Amino acid sequence: MADQYAQFGEDKQSAEIPVIRWDQPPEGPVLVLLDQRTLPTDEVELVCTDAPALVEAIRTLAVRGAPVLGIAGAYGVALAAARGFDVDEAAAALAGARPTAVNLVVGVRRAQAAYQAVLADGGSLEQAAEAALAAARALHREDAEASARMARHGLALLDELLPGGGHRVLTHCNTGALVSGGEGTAFAVALAAHRGGRLRRLWVDETRPLLQGARLTAYEAARNGMPYTLLTDNAAGSLFAAGEVDAVLIGADRIAADGSVANKVGSYPLAVLARYHHVPFVVVAPVTTVDPHTPDGASIEVEQRAGHEVTEVTVPRAPMAGAEAGGGIPVAPLGTQAYNPAFDVTPPELVTAIVTEEGVVSPVTAEALAALCDRSRQVKI
Amino acid sequence: MADQYAQFGEDKQSAEIPVIRWDQPPEGPVLVLLDQRTLPTDEVELVCTDAPALVEAIRTLAVRGAPVLGIAGAYGVALAAARGFDVDEAAAALAGARPTAVNLVVGVRRAQAAYQAVLADGGSLEQAAEAALAAARALHREDAEASARMARHGLALLDELLPGGGHRVLTHCNTGALVSGGEGTAFAVALAAHRGGRLRRLWVDETRPLLQGARLTAYEAARNGMPYTLLTDNAAGSLFAAGEVDAVLIGADRIAADGSVANKVGSYPLAVLARYHHVPFVVVAPVTTVDPHTPDGASIEVEQRAGHEVTEVTVPRAPMAGAEAGGGIPVAPLGTQAYNPAFDVTPPELVTAIVTEEGVVSPVTAEALAALCDRSRQVKI
Repeated sequence: MADQYAQFGEDKQSAEIPVIRWDQPPEGPVLVLLDQRTLPTDEVELVCTDAPALVEAIRTLAVRGAPVLGIAGAYGVALAAARGFDVDEAAAALAGARPTAVNLVVGVRRAQAAYQAVLADGGSLEQAAEAALAAARALHREDAEASARMARHGLALLDELLPGGGHRVLTHCNTGALVSGGEGTAFAVALAAHRGGRLRRLWVDETRPLLQGARLTAYEAARNGMPYTLLTDNAAGSLFAAGEVDAVLIGADRIAADGSVANKVGSYPLAVLARYHHVPFVVVAPVTTVDPHTPDGASIEVEQRAGHEVTEVTVPRAPMAGAEAGGGIPVAPLGTQAYNPAFDVTPPELVTAIVTEEGVVSPVTAEALAALCDRSRQVKI
Repeated sequence: MADQYAQFGEDKQSAEIPVIRWDQPPEGPVLVLLDQRTLPTDEVELVCTDAPALVEAIRTLAVRGAPVLGIAGAYGVALAAARGFDVDEAAAALAGARPTAVNLVVGVRRAQAAYQAVLADGGSLEQAAEAALAAARALHREDAEASARMARHGLALLDELLPGGGHRVLTHCNTGALVSGGEGTAFAVALAAHRGGRLRRLWVDETRPLLQGARLTAYEAARNGMPYTLLTDNAAGSLFAAGEVDAVLIGADRIAADGSVANKVGSYPLAVLARYHHVPFVVVAPVTTVDPHTPDGASIEVEQRAGHEVTEVTVPRAPMAGAEAGGGIPVAPLGTQAYNPAFDVTPPELVTAIVTEEGVVSPVTAEALAALCDRSRQVKI
């Protein structure tokens, strides 16, 4: 479980951020992550040599965001297999690292299934490990392609909803290249609009408690030269009231069969504000985010995180040994109890459209979603 | 403009917080403030010897909150008068220290009028200064009484709206003893409910960017032994969706003649959420907050504050000489532009009731507000 940190050199300061990559140095295979906890201040690589290290990286949000969690989970299984650890044990630990993220489970299961299929066919452990790695790589590649397709579908939808052009888009949390094998989900749509000369403004919610908007989305927007403005989450209401928001674009961590969307806490209030102000509220997510086994919003388990994320402000930095609680700066009296759900759930009636790599669902109904998932499976087979 | 800092001794750790007090040491009169920037970590007194020091304290939020700004403004005029400075110049600087706060102007004008009235009657400068101080003291005393009356009216309304008892109240920003000559506005109502055994939970919005909820309201709730839980502003939606909020209680910085309420940014999204979830949204403020010269919400000037309050997280501490920008910890890429309105405006149709010391206005209409203001003026005369 030895993590190593390596600072990027100047030459790595390109817009092409290696968010996640498999490497095979002489010491054996490793999964290398861009540590998201130290951004935007420092670009640090986190090297995982086994599944427990990756589980820790997922729990502490060194790697986060729905699609990339699936990729990380698949590579984690491949890593356990390649290094001769118990693959089922590693898969169980990885799948349970964050309860709300359905893509994580999907990615883990895919690599595990590939591994088990080879063994069931009488293949060797080495061949099974190679199959797991091939599955992870395929998922990684597919996710990059899916990202490009989501961007295309999403931009077409945006142009249709807002025929005037000059889109002013509000987004929440981080949904760009940092969460994806490609350029992300909601952010990829905004980026496509920017490249097409049709993004007037990207409004970036800072996204308390962990400030992924301020730290990560602003970082990605700056790198891509996009016109962006940061705001506290609670200032979004003023923007809506002033007519400064043309559309809300967010990602999703899990979509129930009825179209209920679990996403970063703060998404639901935006959906309510968007409805009140007659502004489209668009969810962008790969089909794997749709979980047919979760019937509705009430069935989505929402991860409750530690209160110190709220009672302390965490400074972007690599974790230090022996830090207190979250190691942050206290901003509330000692002993303050905090309510800290990681996600909230937006009911389908507040969602204008769900954009996936297979197309757009609008209006959002259980039937339309099921048809999309069926189509997606047929494409894969 | 010499400010001095004095740490409180252990004996001052009582629930009776001297938020603002006039003192007359041998060196001359001073206005002593509890510096709200260092709470909850340190209780530090800020000693103002002249109006410019007080203006600086108001601008940097060492003292903040609608009612206490009025009191501070009146004492500021008294201070300028007592120390022989130009009173009209001091009054103008104080009145303009924060553009949205109407109470500040009201307090300044009252002390200034008392001062000028004595001079117009042929009184001496000393007599005029005494009159200004008497006016400030009267305002201070009246505000404490008003606070008690608002708490009484507010609790009666809460009991009427929520006959089941066991109130779960959500509040935003800080509206307790720190903002008042008494126990505050919205917070005073929650405190009265607590003392009456009817407060089941006080949900405290942290209130970004300056975290007055986390730093100040949690501090006051803890001191008063209230059952409270802190949350990020964007987690309020989850509480509403879960049916965990019975009422929203907030203060106000300015109420337009039509009943539009300017209050800390983040109030308006709560009003929209409250409406969507059929939860009462109650504003608690002294009658002086109603500004008959501001016809409607669109006429309210909303203070735009520096972007570094958003791009940096400010740690509770006394200001240091030579600190960069806000002297906080950067949480966004260098050069990030931020949208940072200090307030937002809630239209009257989203306000269930306005609770004042003179009674409750519900439904909120221009006519009902005007009648209340007339009644209030008659009571004073």
